[in-house]
Amino acid sequence: PGKFNTKAVKVVKGTIKLGRDDPRRVIHSLKVALALTLVSLLYYWRALFDGFGVAGIWAVLTVVVVFEFTVGATLSKSLNRGFATLLAGALGVGAQHLASLFGEKGEPIVLGIFVFLLAATSTFSRFFPRIKARYDYGVLIFILTFSMVTISGYRVEELLEMAHERLLTIIIGGGTCMIISVFLCPVWAGEDLHKLIASNIEKLANSLEGFGGEYFQTPKNGNCGMVPKNEDSFLQGYKSVLNSKTTEESLANFAAWEPRHGRFKFRHPWKQYLKMGALARQCAYQIETLNGHINSNVQVPPEFLQIIQDSCRTMSIETGKALKALAIAIKTMKEPKHACEHLEKSKTAVKDLKTALKAASLENADILAIVPAAAVASILVEIVKGAEKISKSVH
Amino acid sequence: PGKFNTKAVKVVKGTIKLGRDDPRRVIHSLKVALALTLVSLLYYWRALFDGFGVAGIWAVLTVVVVFEFTVGATLSKSLNRGFATLLAGALGVGAQHLASLFGEKGEPIVLGIFVFLLAATSTFSRFFPRIKARYDYGVLIFILTFSMVTISGYRVEELLEMAHERLLTIIIGGGTCMIISVFLCPVWAGEDLHKLIASNIEKLANSLEGFGGEYFQTPKNGNCGMVPKNEDSFLQGYKSVLNSKTTEESLANFAAWEPRHGRFKFRHPWKQYLKMGALARQCAYQIETLNGHINSNVQVPPEFLQIIQDSCRTMSIETGKALKALAIAIKTMKEPKHACEHLEKSKTAVKDLKTALKAASLENADILAIVPAAAVASILVEIVKGAEKISKSVH
Repeated sequence: PGKFNTKAVKVVKGTIKLGRDDPRRVIHSLKVALALTLVSLLYYWRALFDGFGVAGIWAVLTVVVVFEFTVGATLSKSLNRGFATLLAGALGVGAQHLASLFGEKGEPIVLGIFVFLLAATSTFSRFFPRIKARYDYGVLIFILTFSMVTISGYRVEELLEMAHERLLTIIIGGGTCMIISVFLCPVWAGEDLHKLIASNIEKLANSLEGFGGEYFQTPKNGNCGMVPKNEDSFLQGYKSVLNSKTTEESLANFAAWEPRHGRFKFRHPWKQYLKMGALARQCAYQIETLNGHINSNVQVPPEFLQIIQDSCRTMSIETGKALKALAIAIKTMKEPKHACEHLEKSKTAVKDLKTALKAASLENADILAIVPAAAVASILVEIVKGAEKISKSVH
Repeated sequence: PGKFNTKAVKVVKGTIKLGRDDPRRVIHSLKVALALTLVSLLYYWRALFDGFGVAGIWAVLTVVVVFEFTVGATLSKSLNRGFATLLAGALGVGAQHLASLFGEKGEPIVLGIFVFLLAATSTFSRFFPRIKARYDYGVLIFILTFSMVTISGYRVEELLEMAHERLLTIIIGGGTCMIISVFLCPVWAGEDLHKLIASNIEKLANSLEGFGGEYFQTPKNGNCGMVPKNEDSFLQGYKSVLNSKTTEESLANFAAWEPRHGRFKFRHPWKQYLKMGALARQCAYQIETLNGHINSNVQVPPEFLQIIQDSCRTMSIETGKALKALAIAIKTMKEPKHACEHLEKSKTAVKDLKTALKAASLENADILAIVPAAAVASILVEIVKGAEKISKSVH
């Protein structure tokens, strides 16, 4: 029982942490529950008074399947579901009518062929990346509705009435979801994407600043720079940027479905965010390589360290500040004023480094020991270039 | 019309390419169509003879929603659907019975509260990463079935009979999917993961080998090494490795649902593949940084190039060969014999480089021009270390 208790405590703590990390999760759960309860009770009462039972199931089903975390995803699924049902319903009625011309024996065969052909082509169309990204769910519903209408249509005489009834319940279900998700504490995919990109750039900035402060500090107590400290968490922040591509793409995709909200217009340039994200990832790859070099822990000869130390520190701290200014500019959607200043400073540092290296002569130096430090300096120069690209893409 | 024609030609070409790139896509589409047609016709005939109409819809629905590209995904969804329906059905009957004790007026209120509580907690549980990864679809079906049973249960007197009927149709639908996906040209997620990891490592190998051959070639015609050539596609192969994390994780997740097949046992260590994948990605980040350095196109002083050229070429080509041997070893699931040889050679090259650098003296050299080359050499040394880690993880 003690073991069970500790496990239970762990689960409870995990749950609380999950809710505290993003309270919108709790709100989302309540919103789904509200939508489902509303639709269920509607169905319950309608069944009570009208005997309008079976079709009401589709309202419940629609709510459960369609309600997603972000507004964009919910709208995308609702609209996909609505239009696919309409289109497939019409096609299904047509196919069923056509099949009935072939007589009682021919009908099931013709219907079977129709279903087979349509299912095969539609399923194949889901492999097209564009359809996969935007209309995957619609195609699924299309196949589903078409086969249900063609097959069940034969038995149920009141086909049109049924279609009307079902479409109505889907509209009720989908509409409830859309209204609740848009008007009750909405979670906008566009805003999430916006924040994600800004926070990713900020994470890079933090890592760079921390890196500059830690490894290229002015030597004191005879302790030379470029010594790895304990693995600080703020230095590791950039790691989550490395694998952010999938999240960014799906958010951008959902954002395209969202109406005007807050500071975002209807056709906000979401693709621009993907470009920024790609550049930020590029930068993160370089920081990752940098990190690998630092942890290899080679003693750099002091005379060489002296040459590169100041400019490397400036490069990494100023680039960090520039990125931070850019992140703030993205967040507030204002012109990044200070970013250019900081970028200029880090570019000057690059020039300083180059002049210092040109002037230096290392007659008796241990070249082997210089190489890793040279690599660090060189990668930093590349990072400055990357930051410049990010800055350009923000404007 | 000309414009329309070119567009149509484009779409047709795209379709053919999609099918040719992976013929299993065409086969998958046919498999889905077959399963759907079988189930539809079954439903059609049963409706004809038994008047067993409405429930048959659930078989069609199950097939459309559950049939996925890989066996693992199909099994995972089918089993999730089956067990969730069973569990939620039982709970729903209990809840409905409990609610009926509250009298005619209290019942809808109590039912509403039940649905609300269950929907809220279940939706929240979908945010747990572990549940999200393996049981997301099951939780969805759980909410769906529970609300449908509690709400509709009140009206339909023959609740148990209906539950029995519906479960039967779901089993027919899910069973058809499972049988067709396992026995008709199966696409195993595990095998795909296996191949993906091997091909990723091979891509890294190709990039490294190409890199060694291109940039560190023995100078001829007075043309010095380290000059970027045109962007060769085989050098760019590693780029797809950078973002493979999501694909790898979902494949590993589906692979865990698959039974024994081919050379893979039931509990094959799929997590090991994720580790290899992570190490390969690490390596790809470094190659990406390397690539950035090479394209910056700085003229390296010949006297320094001479020192590093030979060992750098050996490092990159031999590491490439070692990775290729590892990729083949993964593919054939045999001990990688030649990999160790090649790794040893590249480690010797690292040592050679170090001795050469130690012995070198660069009195009048332009240190600024040396730095990028030094960075390249240093990154290559890190790549060799990375390849060693991959080699260890393969064993």
